[in-house]
Amino acid sequence: MSDLLAHGVLAGLDEIASIGRDAQRGGYSRHVWQSADHELRDWFVERAERLGLAAETDRNGNIWAWWGPPGPNAIVTGSHLDSVPGGGAYDGPLGIVSALDAIARLQATGVTPSRPCAILVFAEEEGSRFGIACLGSRLMTGALDADRARALVDADGVTLADAAAHAGLDPARLGTDRLALDRIGLFIELHVEQGRGLIDLGHPVAVASRVLAHGRWRLTVTGQGNHAGATLMTDRRDPMVAAARAVLAVQQAATMRPDTRATIGRMNIVPGGTNVIPSRVEAWLDARAETDEETRALLGDITTAVDAAVAENGCSVAMVEESWADAVHFDPQLRERFSAALDGVPALPTGAGHDAGVLAASVPSAMLFVRNPTGISHSPEEFASADDCIAGVEALEKLLRTLL
Amino acid sequence: MSDLLAHGVLAGLDEIASIGRDAQRGGYSRHVWQSADHELRDWFVERAERLGLAAETDRNGNIWAWWGPPGPNAIVTGSHLDSVPGGGAYDGPLGIVSALDAIARLQATGVTPSRPCAILVFAEEEGSRFGIACLGSRLMTGALDADRARALVDADGVTLADAAAHAGLDPARLGTDRLALDRIGLFIELHVEQGRGLIDLGHPVAVASRVLAHGRWRLTVTGQGNHAGATLMTDRRDPMVAAARAVLAVQQAATMRPDTRATIGRMNIVPGGTNVIPSRVEAWLDARAETDEETRALLGDITTAVDAAVAENGCSVAMVEESWADAVHFDPQLRERFSAALDGVPALPTGAGHDAGVLAASVPSAMLFVRNPTGISHSPEEFASADDCIAGVEALEKLLRTLL
Repeated sequence: MSDLLAHGVLAGLDEIASIGRDAQRGGYSRHVWQSADHELRDWFVERAERLGLAAETDRNGNIWAWWGPPGPNAIVTGSHLDSVPGGGAYDGPLGIVSALDAIARLQATGVTPSRPCAILVFAEEEGSRFGIACLGSRLMTGALDADRARALVDADGVTLADAAAHAGLDPARLGTDRLALDRIGLFIELHVEQGRGLIDLGHPVAVASRVLAHGRWRLTVTGQGNHAGATLMTDRRDPMVAAARAVLAVQQAATMRPDTRATIGRMNIVPGGTNVIPSRVEAWLDARAETDEETRALLGDITTAVDAAVAENGCSVAMVEESWADAVHFDPQLRERFSAALDGVPALPTGAGHDAGVLAASVPSAMLFVRNPTGISHSPEEFASADDCIAGVEALEKLLRTLL
Repeated sequence: MSDLLAHGVLAGLDEIASIGRDAQRGGYSRHVWQSADHELRDWFVERAERLGLAAETDRNGNIWAWWGPPGPNAIVTGSHLDSVPGGGAYDGPLGIVSALDAIARLQATGVTPSRPCAILVFAEEEGSRFGIACLGSRLMTGALDADRARALVDADGVTLADAAAHAGLDPARLGTDRLALDRIGLFIELHVEQGRGLIDLGHPVAVASRVLAHGRWRLTVTGQGNHAGATLMTDRRDPMVAAARAVLAVQQAATMRPDTRATIGRMNIVPGGTNVIPSRVEAWLDARAETDEETRALLGDITTAVDAAVAENGCSVAMVEESWADAVHFDPQLRERFSAALDGVPALPTGAGHDAGVLAASVPSAMLFVRNPTGISHSPEEFASADDCIAGVEALEKLLRTLL
């Protein structure tokens, strides 16, 4: 009996509970190729090897752990280990520890896979360091251009190319990796639910039906920097006031359309002194809706409203798209087959993006969601009960058993 | 003829033009006891010693450079070398290079001072590192409690006590320094004007009449952190939206009262991810008005408006005073005497705080302002013409000549 099986999914989460804690924000800050991420990667490789899996890191920094020989038509399951700044303990890692636990359970009951099988850990799913979510899966599938990726910079001005090189990768080899991708016959990602969907349905587990369309834009609001004490209110072109109007315009635009979401959760105020009227405010917009068209229409509303809002303060605004992901519909036949295999668990759409959503354009993909009793995610308060985590592993184990 | 006199005030500014440049914000970021500040201090000591002045650093990190023996009833002139983040080249340094140039001019014409004379460089006038403006003068005069000062922390969590110790000071000896203060018979600070006052008056130089009352408060807006994609607009308690309402409430409150100023120029959004609804937003308020009563009344309006604004989003707010400075009226007799000595230059109030304003409560103090052709300050665009800088030095030289 393997060591991990003796402890299971809960012990797995427990083992990494101290890695990457964020004392200032609370929760975890685990960003790609920084110390907590390296520690988590080492932990994963060690755990996978203890199950007899063979770990390798691909050209884009994703880790594959093979149960038996690598090969085509593989059943692959996984998720990610990185977090948003100050994120919760489950978003990402639950899928990884569940995959390890499920394979340990299969091994303990004497299963020998009849086809290749692997656990896959994606790099930078949250986009917290370089701004683009699902970086590892987008690079592998070619959804993100390698030249554009190499030039991305983090908050300290480090390029992705330099960060990748520092992590031991060859920056010139980042990008579409057909050889790696073509080995996947089917991808399953288990993930904590990030809304209130499963509470209402009364089930611990669901399969995913679809992912909302999703874009990120950087807004640069420009005004006139000046002295906070010496400048009359009437003489100001304050981009902070203009950006505040923009935040409200964004919120209002999303509230007025049914089921769309728009958020400004990050800003860079330049120069950012208490006694200084800023010269410039950068704000990042996250917008999502059920379809690509609705998301573009929401963006249109936002653009018009923000332009008008900042003009009230004599400021100007520029908007640049940083990323875009079409709405994803997971393969309905696969979803129905999995739901039936799991005694009819419900299907649930998700407002959150996932690597499985990126892979779905290239290979058959599916997701399992584990109930979140408060619906809170991307927060230290994110939670899943012990019973529900175990229900999630049991569901994944059951699917793998039918597939292998 | 001294080296500095050969070059004058403009060459002095030129010598420090490369120190502490901020590539990201533009302009200068020169904060107390960090590398640019140390470099500027070394430059000043070297320059002062070349004029035969004897430099010493006091218990609070202010530098005194004595022309002749230190002693009571001294004529002291000076300003500061630190800046706001991304500040201009003149705010602070103009007063220091003008003092060096003025003394060099006096020396060149054979003046020997009949009473003690010094240049004084104050530490952390802008409060950009530890949050409290006029730190060096407030510590020296006792306007800031030493225990409170020692416990202040910078953005990296370093305490002022540790930073002072690292700079070679004894943290236990920070605080009221009567011995240093009692040497000052009269203090004169030359400073670039930070509003449009001198443009309208058509003069290159003015004397200061008064300083607005001024306070700083930290607002903490608390909501519910959550996932930006998975959380419905109607389920949110988004503190960024609440903080945006607060920014507008602040601007509106200050606009509605005559001649008051209120600014939010700095925020800390926690956790600060693009795909994360924040859990908390900290915002710093700078508020000023002609009298203490008006400033308190403005704060009352702001408190009421901000409470109501954040409640609209189901958020809460706490406000903590970080600093307070009463309105200052410079000695009217001294001001009139100086104005007359300078052929009737006008008297001008200032919305900006100054070390001279802090000293005014303890010793006779006066200020000279040098015209700012755009009124822009705390910005890389801050400017004073070469002719006006020279007019400023000539005015300071003339006053010192009558006083020494």
